[in-house]
Amino acid sequence: MSDVAEKPRQHGADRACTTALRIGIAGLGTVGAGVVRLLRANADLVAARAGRPIVVTAISARDRARERGIDVSDLRWHDDSGALATDPEVDVVVELIGGADGPAARLVEAALDAGKPVVTANKALIAVHGARLARLAESRGVALAFEAAVAGGIPVIKAVREGLAADRLTRIGGILNGTCNYILTTMRETGRDFASVLADAQALGYAEADPSTDIDGIDAAHKLAILAALAFGRPVDFASVHVEGIRRISAQDIDFARQLGYRIKLLGIASRSAAGIETRVHPCLVPQSAPVAQVEGVFNAVVAEGDFVGRVMLEGRGAGAGPTATAVVADLIDLARGHAAPVWGAASATLQSASSMPMSQHRGAYYLRLNVTDRPGVIAEVAAALRDAGVSLKSMLQHGRAPGEAVAIVLLTHETGESSMQKAIERLAGLSVVLEPPAMIRIEAG
Amino acid sequence: MSDVAEKPRQHGADRACTTALRIGIAGLGTVGAGVVRLLRANADLVAARAGRPIVVTAISARDRARERGIDVSDLRWHDDSGALATDPEVDVVVELIGGADGPAARLVEAALDAGKPVVTANKALIAVHGARLARLAESRGVALAFEAAVAGGIPVIKAVREGLAADRLTRIGGILNGTCNYILTTMRETGRDFASVLADAQALGYAEADPSTDIDGIDAAHKLAILAALAFGRPVDFASVHVEGIRRISAQDIDFARQLGYRIKLLGIASRSAAGIETRVHPCLVPQSAPVAQVEGVFNAVVAEGDFVGRVMLEGRGAGAGPTATAVVADLIDLARGHAAPVWGAASATLQSASSMPMSQHRGAYYLRLNVTDRPGVIAEVAAALRDAGVSLKSMLQHGRAPGEAVAIVLLTHETGESSMQKAIERLAGLSVVLEPPAMIRIEAG
Repeated sequence: MSDVAEKPRQHGADRACTTALRIGIAGLGTVGAGVVRLLRANADLVAARAGRPIVVTAISARDRARERGIDVSDLRWHDDSGALATDPEVDVVVELIGGADGPAARLVEAALDAGKPVVTANKALIAVHGARLARLAESRGVALAFEAAVAGGIPVIKAVREGLAADRLTRIGGILNGTCNYILTTMRETGRDFASVLADAQALGYAEADPSTDIDGIDAAHKLAILAALAFGRPVDFASVHVEGIRRISAQDIDFARQLGYRIKLLGIASRSAAGIETRVHPCLVPQSAPVAQVEGVFNAVVAEGDFVGRVMLEGRGAGAGPTATAVVADLIDLARGHAAPVWGAASATLQSASSMPMSQHRGAYYLRLNVTDRPGVIAEVAAALRDAGVSLKSMLQHGRAPGEAVAIVLLTHETGESSMQKAIERLAGLSVVLEPPAMIRIEAG
Repeated sequence: MSDVAEKPRQHGADRACTTALRIGIAGLGTVGAGVVRLLRANADLVAARAGRPIVVTAISARDRARERGIDVSDLRWHDDSGALATDPEVDVVVELIGGADGPAARLVEAALDAGKPVVTANKALIAVHGARLARLAESRGVALAFEAAVAGGIPVIKAVREGLAADRLTRIGGILNGTCNYILTTMRETGRDFASVLADAQALGYAEADPSTDIDGIDAAHKLAILAALAFGRPVDFASVHVEGIRRISAQDIDFARQLGYRIKLLGIASRSAAGIETRVHPCLVPQSAPVAQVEGVFNAVVAEGDFVGRVMLEGRGAGAGPTATAVVADLIDLARGHAAPVWGAASATLQSASSMPMSQHRGAYYLRLNVTDRPGVIAEVAAALRDAGVSLKSMLQHGRAPGEAVAIVLLTHETGESSMQKAIERLAGLSVVLEPPAMIRIEAG
């Protein structure tokens, strides 16, 4: 049988003392320092599991003098990260610089081109350039690993690419951004508004000084694009992801959602149907009893649905030095073991370009909040506008009474088309009794 | 670098058409038929991900004529399962017979001995003989894979052995038996008693005709022993698992737990401390807000805690043809890709025999229900018995009033030692006012 079933390599004690795998790290921020710390703290355990030691030999970062709580004085230092690609003392390049383009992209490309495996936590790079980089890695016969790029310490890339490899997945997604989940959780728990909770999150280090990548949904969209490509076996396609963030979520909407038995979560959802592959990131009302509704604070959760396995959910910390370092080093252990699954789950040449379904063809139920002048006939006017747009109402509730003043009307629709809904919102916004742009949030089962 | 970093194998399109991996399946019950069905239904996808086709060529099962909803007429049939080990048309043996000993053990041993990789769903075999079989597999340089043995379709073996390989895990466990979780969930939802819900579960096929392996906790203990070995890097040790089942859980206890803000779950918990490794399976009170408390019905959930990753939870279907077939075929795809992690996460020779902590040394909080005669002085008598045993009370509540009749007293303790608690229970059972053996359930954070 030796010519048919590939014999796995020996992992006996005889390998435990072989040459170390030498790592060069580009980018020594929180995650980079975490990787160095983990490889030192758990050196014995990592060596036993990898079959040989894994040691950091070289570093590249902007500020050599910065205090990071780790001693890097005995490591080779490169001012230019690109030099890691050609450093003869570096077997594997770990890219933790970040960003879809610029030095991160140049380093990864140079390393792969030089025949060096790359491990990266860079979701933007993989989401935008991952298809091309995978082909480059394949042509050079080296690995490109990115477990840390999605959901931090949760081994979701491995779960989808290997654990669920036998299944035809129909849906994958979940809570992919801890900053947004922390903000939405805190808004619900405290009743405070978005701006004030964001400011606190920034002070606590849960949100960046420029928080737009997180709160506008871009980060979640990068991760969703990666998950969708792996789940559905098509080249990664970030451009086709529909993206909305959480800036417009009000304390009022969170409270109304609660009264209706829902929580508001920023979800990334990729699904496949006969109409094509739909990928979207936007705030959602999910039933309080849904598993993802229970995932709170900075935690992430990914739900996958397959034809044989049913529903699988993975939950854990999606960011931070420790969880992300866990994922980076797990990739390194795989490399040291000589294990590399195909970058996108199957050889690039076998991936099929499935058509993407535009958001205008989405169908679902909707939550709509209108601030209107409380006067007779308002409800009838609103109902007529929805009817004319072809939207079927499930319920409509006026909150409070204040004749002549502003009151909120909350509507839930039956399943309807996105384009009908957009038409309805446009009509409603044009009514003189509607005092501000309608707030729309899509409803998901979870 | 080629002599240092092992070059991962090429997964280019050139491999897509190579020779098929030929599978022989022993045991053609629900799971075996599910594997055949999956490999046929998803043949294209499996071939793309594995780099080559995976086909069933041979079968062994007791009853050749039984209707299974699949056509096996074109497959080689062996009346003796052991013949699969030597069948030249079989590259990999899939063992789905079950049982720690007997034909399953003989087949797995013969196949490994003959240099054939084995994939099995047999948790009893791996829990009891896994250490020896791993050494055999290593000595022959072949893989022994058992993703399907724990938590069905949830890729928890892969997550622990590879995804969390960089971490020093301190705790692992969760809901490992879907039958027990279904029974406990249904008891809570309906208020019915154990015997009646079990009978229904049997009628629905969620419990076996002889349900003892499930409801007495043995099945969960097999899985916990496997998880503990992987998580802590020690040889698998089923004998050291403390096991209690759910037969004695009453509708009354479930109701009292609910009133106190808890749910009752059968948990398997493995933890490591300076005192050693503790492995135990028993019913627990867990706070309603704990993630595992939300896992209901036939679903399983595994929670792992590591020094860098924090807490990770994986949830999904733990049994059934589809989920189990997913896990078996994922192992086959790994084999076809030439990937085999060390059976127990590191070479057998490097595993260390950590000491096991006996249950008598366990410390925790306890729930205790006493049915007593309602007469003056009862509470004082009970409190004195607990004090004398060294157990510190957190709360004590008498449910109802019925002078001279039987009433229930529910006690919650502060953290205390198991041996003190056992002494207290013995004393309480000896009191004349205590009408039946005290019901004790341990309290866990989740």
